[in-house]
Amino acid sequence: MILQSQYKKVFLYKIDSMEKLIVIGGGAAGMSASSKARRLKPQMEIEVFEATKMVSHAPCGIPYFVEGLFDNEELFMTYTPEFFIENRKINVRTNTKVTEIDLNSRIVYAEGKYGKTKSEYDYLVISTGSKPKRLPTEGEDRVFYMHHPAEAVTLRQKLWSLNTIAIIGGGILGVEAAEALSERGKKVILIHHGKYLLNKTLDAELGKIITDRVSRDVEVKIGEAVKEIKQGGRTIVTDKGKYEVEGTIVAVGVEPNTELVKGKLLLGETGAIKVDEYMRTNYREVYSAGDNTESVNIVTGKPYWVPFAPVANKMGYVAGSNIGGEPMKFPGVVNTQITKYKEYFVGRVGLQEEEARKYGFHPVSATISGKTRARYYPGAKDIHVKVIADEDTKRVLGAQIVGEEEVLGRIDMMAAAIMKGFTIEDTFFIEMGYLPAISRVWDPVIVAIRKLMRD
Amino acid sequence: MILQSQYKKVFLYKIDSMEKLIVIGGGAAGMSASSKARRLKPQMEIEVFEATKMVSHAPCGIPYFVEGLFDNEELFMTYTPEFFIENRKINVRTNTKVTEIDLNSRIVYAEGKYGKTKSEYDYLVISTGSKPKRLPTEGEDRVFYMHHPAEAVTLRQKLWSLNTIAIIGGGILGVEAAEALSERGKKVILIHHGKYLLNKTLDAELGKIITDRVSRDVEVKIGEAVKEIKQGGRTIVTDKGKYEVEGTIVAVGVEPNTELVKGKLLLGETGAIKVDEYMRTNYREVYSAGDNTESVNIVTGKPYWVPFAPVANKMGYVAGSNIGGEPMKFPGVVNTQITKYKEYFVGRVGLQEEEARKYGFHPVSATISGKTRARYYPGAKDIHVKVIADEDTKRVLGAQIVGEEEVLGRIDMMAAAIMKGFTIEDTFFIEMGYLPAISRVWDPVIVAIRKLMRD
Ligand SMILES: Cc1cc2nc3c(=O)[nH]c(=O)nc-3n(C[C@H](O)[C@H](O)[C@H](O)COP(=O)(O)OP(=O)(O)OC[C@H]3O[C@@H](n4cnc5c(N)ncnc54)[C@H](O)[C@@H]3O)c2cc1C
Ligand SMILES: Cc1cc2nc3c(=O)[nH]c(=O)nc-3n(C[C@H](O)[C@H](O)[C@H](O)COP(=O)(O)OP(=O)(O)OC[C@H]3O[C@@H](n4cnc5c(N)ncnc54)[C@H](O)[C@@H]3O)c2cc1C
Repeated sequence: MILQSQYKKVFLYKIDSMEKLIVIGGGAAGMSASSKARRLKPQMEIEVFEATKMVSHAPCGIPYFVEGLFDNEELFMTYTPEFFIENRKINVRTNTKVTEIDLNSRIVYAEGKYGKTKSEYDYLVISTGSKPKRLPTEGEDRVFYMHHPAEAVTLRQKLWSLNTIAIIGGGILGVEAAEALSERGKKVILIHHGKYLLNKTLDAELGKIITDRVSRDVEVKIGEAVKEIKQGGRTIVTDKGKYEVEGTIVAVGVEPNTELVKGKLLLGETGAIKVDEYMRTNYREVYSAGDNTESVNIVTGKPYWVPFAPVANKMGYVAGSNIGGEPMKFPGVVNTQITKYKEYFVGRVGLQEEEARKYGFHPVSATISGKTRARYYPGAKDIHVKVIADEDTKRVLGAQIVGEEEVLGRIDMMAAAIMKGFTIEDTFFIEMGYLPAISRVWDPVIVAIRKLMRD
Repeated sequence: MILQSQYKKVFLYKIDSMEKLIVIGGGAAGMSASSKARRLKPQMEIEVFEATKMVSHAPCGIPYFVEGLFDNEELFMTYTPEFFIENRKINVRTNTKVTEIDLNSRIVYAEGKYGKTKSEYDYLVISTGSKPKRLPTEGEDRVFYMHHPAEAVTLRQKLWSLNTIAIIGGGILGVEAAEALSERGKKVILIHHGKYLLNKTLDAELGKIITDRVSRDVEVKIGEAVKEIKQGGRTIVTDKGKYEVEGTIVAVGVEPNTELVKGKLLLGETGAIKVDEYMRTNYREVYSAGDNTESVNIVTGKPYWVPFAPVANKMGYVAGSNIGGEPMKFPGVVNTQITKYKEYFVGRVGLQEEEARKYGFHPVSATISGKTRARYYPGAKDIHVKVIADEDTKRVLGAQIVGEEEVLGRIDMMAAAIMKGFTIEDTFFIEMGYLPAISRVWDPVIVAIRKLMRD
């Protein structure tokens, strides 16, 4: 680790004309890092290696593409490779996979449409994202992973040709896949080993609401563990039964994609690449950002891993800023999650109750059901809120919301509160706006907080 | 003023069985105060005097009632007087107006359906709300003020019988009235002396968007000062013209209703009743809460007045808590405002740019226009965001948003940020959630903040 004083010297010395930055992975984090570095160092040479044909792409759109909400795969990209090359002078090498890194000689080896290449760098950003956890299968021709937008067209073609599809895993991705396929009129069997859907997002009170809702459209199998996937994805054997389907989506989670650097860079206890606040690995000129990178949970102060797009983008931004000579620290994460199933939005931030206990807090919680609009205003929807706080310090630790409108904003507000250690009373006094058409004079969040305050 | 040490003694000594609390005004603040006090002191005698027939009512609903979105005037009340009497043992005296207070002898004089009464108190809460500013008129039979829900039925009857109606004042109330009447098919002339509508809510960039939008349905007269209202509200003379209408709504703002206490209780520089953090006036046993009460602006540390319902409710809650023996401080306000016009929601929090300058800050600002959903997700709406920060301290001072969805939540988030002095960088790192169906991976608020950060 480098000392703060040395650190400053390194950054304040800008010699961008001779410098070269290589970025591995052209997703959110990679393109954010390279764009920010470019802005700060107009002369620096910047090269991005991306294994697929897409850069600055959004995997988050895959479920909606599968649902048929849009058809143009170009829309997965914020900017095209050509845009980066022409407008930002960032040499984007698509369809080019980095095969090896030599951290001591600062060399990146890649293979792609122009054959094998070998490039030296002054700065390196590792932004290779995550990869889906795989299940052992007997044959794979009807087993699908929803992961990279570059494969979305093929994926969709195959899924649309099938009628009965199993989804394994009832986390965010599994539920989003269930929504997409049920909207397409497919018969869906959703097999989940947890006690309710979204159990890594929500506690049981709210998780059950979603489980019930999904069960109205989809055959939901709760508390079932998959033992075998056979016949290329056509037969699924669980500890409770056996299902014959035409294809299977495996959505049992993702893990940091650290293949390239395993044994070379320090990994953290979460399995992702360990970085300091400046997004630097244990090699001072090597940065890591995005889904392959470990962070710190602001609530616990402990290592944590949050594979979501805004975090990836901001990590990239911070890495780019530091490489560009403007020191910036990434403050850590609070694990904001937001998803939807049909009319329901689902959000959470901070720790779940059990998680809080595990980290040594003494969590107390309040769960309430309310409405989204004044009692006299038409169209009010149900909203369910859970807030969790620490009994000893009165600090708010987490919030979860399920509802049909204005879920995200309330979660974002709680993200701000939790990031800065708001107490129950601080949160009570957040001056939330009131308009009968879109809220309640005692906002559901405040009602939940007030309940905590009283108990 | 009482010392902190004395203060504690007073509160920790609960003798509720012999005590009596009188509350003047049964609106949001009054009923919040009495309910909280009741919860904490089950034996205390509590009496609420309310001049009208309604308690725990919501003036905020009047525009929507006029629009015809609901018909049952009972819905203006969260709970009926009977509910308070029976379920909370709070003696609610409706149609009973307090005519005088003797603060030294602790006596309240009232007049109502049971004649004149005289009651002694141990604690008093003044929660008489605000009153509309009046304009001098020649005759009044067609001049309307939208203020108290108890008059909503009569008001609506009259307005519905007219075809051409002038609204004087283009603040929140004027714009909400314009929406309601234009939805009813009325011809509306909206006369406003400011340079654009909502100029006490928004800066010009965003205010103009709303002005243009309202102008599509309503004849908007900007920068015109009303000189005279004649013929009972049928003729309006401004510095630029003369309008013949069938009736006139005056919506030129409200002021604290301090009639009862003027010359008796200390008023602050805003004209509202001065209180300490415990909502106590200069008489230790007399509390004040709601629209008649001054607060402190958290951003400036200076006296400020925010006549909105959530603030009134929380002030009441704090007063009730302190009376009930559980010390609680009100932290001040950040002036969160939210309103709508047709498809547009409008929100703001903190200081406007000019206001910031007036208070001695060196405001810098960024204004951006964006979308509410991912580029590939159907139904994305426009959203416009302005953020204001102090150049010297980098502290965020204010935010304004105009858009078609998820405006409120973003404003609430900024309210949390502004209340706790977030810097530009703190705000950049708020981990806002991302779901393509309802947000952008770089949220418009973060884009505006990022712009500020760069400049
Ligand atoms: C289906 C799906 C839905 C999602 N929905 C949401 C959502 O709604 N909201 C949200 O916040 N997040 C969502 N996420 C997560 C989000 O997409 C990720 O957090 C984000 O994409 C991470 O960005 P990244 O740059 O770290 O990684 P990625 O976007 O995965 O980019 C990594 C890139 O590196 C490339 N790469 C890997 N190895 C190499 C190599 N050796 N050489 C060259 N290139 C390489 C890959 O091809 C890839 O393009 C979703 C993810 C998925 C899969
Ligand atoms: C048309 C309109 C729309 C609004 N829309 C919104 C909105 O969308 N969002 C928002 O946050 N705020 C809104 N407001 C403001 C909000 O209604 C007030 O902030 C809130 O009602 C204040 O509560 P209060 O208890 O202080 O006063 P009030 O609700 O005004 O209650 C005061 C009560 O005291 C009574 N009273 C007064 N003098 C006496 C006396 N001498 N004896 C006995 N009783 C007395 C009055 O009759 C009244 O019932 C709106 C206001 C109006 C008028």
